Amino acid sequence: MALRVGVVGGGQLARMMIAPAVELGIEIEVLAEERGMAARLAAGSVGDYTDIATVLAFARDVDVVTFDHEHVPQQVLRTLVAEGVAVHPGPDALQFAQDKLLMRARLEELGMPQPDWASVSDAEQLQDFLDAHGGRAVVKTPRGGYDGKGVRVVDAATEAEDWFAALAEDARGGSLLVEEFVPFTRELAQQVARRASGEVRAYPVVETVQRDGVCAEVFAPAPRAGERLRDAAARIGIAIAEGLGVTGMLAVELFETTDDRILVNELAMRPHNSGHWTQDGAVTSQFEQHLRAVLDLPLGDPSPRQPWAVMVNILGGPAQGGLESRFASAMAAHPSVKLHTYGKAPRPGRKVGHVNATGDDLEDIVYDARAAAALFAD
Amino acid sequence: MALRVGVVGGGQLARMMIAPAVELGIEIEVLAEERGMAARLAAGSVGDYTDIATVLAFARDVDVVTFDHEHVPQQVLRTLVAEGVAVHPGPDALQFAQDKLLMRARLEELGMPQPDWASVSDAEQLQDFLDAHGGRAVVKTPRGGYDGKGVRVVDAATEAEDWFAALAEDARGGSLLVEEFVPFTRELAQQVARRASGEVRAYPVVETVQRDGVCAEVFAPAPRAGERLRDAAARIGIAIAEGLGVTGMLAVELFETTDDRILVNELAMRPHNSGHWTQDGAVTSQFEQHLRAVLDLPLGDPSPRQPWAVMVNILGGPAQGGLESRFASAMAAHPSVKLHTYGKAPRPGRKVGHVNATGDDLEDIVYDARAAAALFAD
Repeated sequence: MALRVGVVGGGQLARMMIAPAVELGIEIEVLAEERGMAARLAAGSVGDYTDIATVLAFARDVDVVTFDHEHVPQQVLRTLVAEGVAVHPGPDALQFAQDKLLMRARLEELGMPQPDWASVSDAEQLQDFLDAHGGRAVVKTPRGGYDGKGVRVVDAATEAEDWFAALAEDARGGSLLVEEFVPFTRELAQQVARRASGEVRAYPVVETVQRDGVCAEVFAPAPRAGERLRDAAARIGIAIAEGLGVTGMLAVELFETTDDRILVNELAMRPHNSGHWTQDGAVTSQFEQHLRAVLDLPLGDPSPRQPWAVMVNILGGPAQGGLESRFASAMAAHPSVKLHTYGKAPRPGRKVGHVNATGDDLEDIVYDARAAAALFAD
Repeated sequence: MALRVGVVGGGQLARMMIAPAVELGIEIEVLAEERGMAARLAAGSVGDYTDIATVLAFARDVDVVTFDHEHVPQQVLRTLVAEGVAVHPGPDALQFAQDKLLMRARLEELGMPQPDWASVSDAEQLQDFLDAHGGRAVVKTPRGGYDGKGVRVVDAATEAEDWFAALAEDARGGSLLVEEFVPFTRELAQQVARRASGEVRAYPVVETVQRDGVCAEVFAPAPRAGERLRDAAARIGIAIAEGLGVTGMLAVELFETTDDRILVNELAMRPHNSGHWTQDGAVTSQFEQHLRAVLDLPLGDPSPRQPWAVMVNILGGPAQGGLESRFASAMAAHPSVKLHTYGKAPRPGRKVGHVNATGDDLEDIVYDARAAAALFAD
């Protein structure tokens, strides 16, 4: 009997699990939000992931349930577990990816380096935090943010008034997260895989470049990263995976500061944009590793295959003809660049694919990957 | 509109086109012989590939028709072409893979190095050939052979009597192919990709090891292969691809002789077992390259990613529990070996999967790949 993995969510992360699942001989079943999504080839089910009956019915036919995103409600997750379904990552871990206030409090308990932060429930509390941190801070809604949404840099408490007003109307009440504005030199990401029986594997720390709050480029391993930095990032990743009980892939987004520290910015408990380079640049891709980890199979070697790998996102894409209309020119000009598309209609700023390049010379492959990605933009 | 490739045949070669199709954003549709075959994830159609109406109906929904095997009858292929369907490789090329007598005659016209050969229609002609070639020869049925079937080494014409008898009963009549018994030191394989508009790319020549007529192991690039040998093999591959008008992947199986020549043994016009190493060892896998070539898209870089790659077939497999029962032990012991399974029930000698290993040290990766593959055997 083939092992069967069920993935809730039909986006590109589920789609990119299909290739390693086919090669390993793991059957993959996707519960997609609607028809025609990125993971449509494996989407035998379409339904609402917030509906307990829908998700339970989906879970009956698979050996383990995992996720394309972190939005499945705790109540649904806990019902699955109570019904004996293997869920990875489980609700106890996922709550820290779903609520940034919980995450900050737990990382503090674990002694992880992170920005100063506070839970604030009104403008006065926020102003106090601003006054204590040089007059500038980052305000975040604890839930539902992604790709820069739900994040705002403020210089005055009045700039978060609409969010406080929304909180007051929310039946659940609650608070906002405020964090010190970190003077960072660059952003890094540390990926770690962990399986239920405890085995952990750390990928090399990478540098990520964001534009308008969206990941634009990744350099792997992070250039100019000495042994001290690499070890510190791996230790943080492993400590968080173990401390939060994460199973599957964990991505820890990090700030490298002007005073040479690394601080935890965000967490993601799933394959992550910062790890797309592993498809062509690592012995074991993050998508294969996630499948192994959630099935509690031994983890694969996360080592790079070549000295450098670069990932450049394709954001937007041509208004006419789809990405396919650019295949001929991009492939002819860049025969060694690897193209990955998500089967999504191009729309300004939307992630519709990415390219990877690997090699011995970082400058060469950065040029190659950027030029190839640019050929897909209008 | 996504590009759509239709693959006739539901075996492991079709299966292994799924992963690169998903990543590139090419829709792949498989016409399988029956339900539950290796390529079942993409097998929206099930039917008889010798039936013209079945194959025509399948071809209507795709941009190009290509193949998992070379057994689609010429009449079906020519009807597709007459109906305006893009077929790659086309019938004019495929006939040379379908009939070894046609192949030998055409290679002779092209001046390709090959064993002495003859078309023989009775035992007397075969005995004459034997007498002229040291008393030993290889007799082949021109059609339908694979994995060593339809091939026999004979020391006397009487050893082919049953085949001559079968020929006499066959309404089409015909002859057997007889070839000199080549004293070879090893077998090599040269893969080439060619697209309709003429672009050609050669992979590095590899060494293949056969056991009981079935490919067991592949070393890439071929060890102890100097520039002269590599260039000669690539030139032969390209000359055959161009001379026979092959589109898609071509594999040329070669003998390296004791007197330092290379001779063409067999041809395959599709992805081939000798190229499975490219999935993890080359910038562009043979499966991605085949998709690009049959869609007439620019070809990818066939360069190796690392100095050495080794492929070891999994032949047979455990009698109980399927390959999955061995995942834990094989993955734990060999975290850097890449496993590829075909979703086929294990049966003695059957190709049910393979493993690839890549790295700087050939001995290390050979050990690793063999040990991993052995864990899947009973």
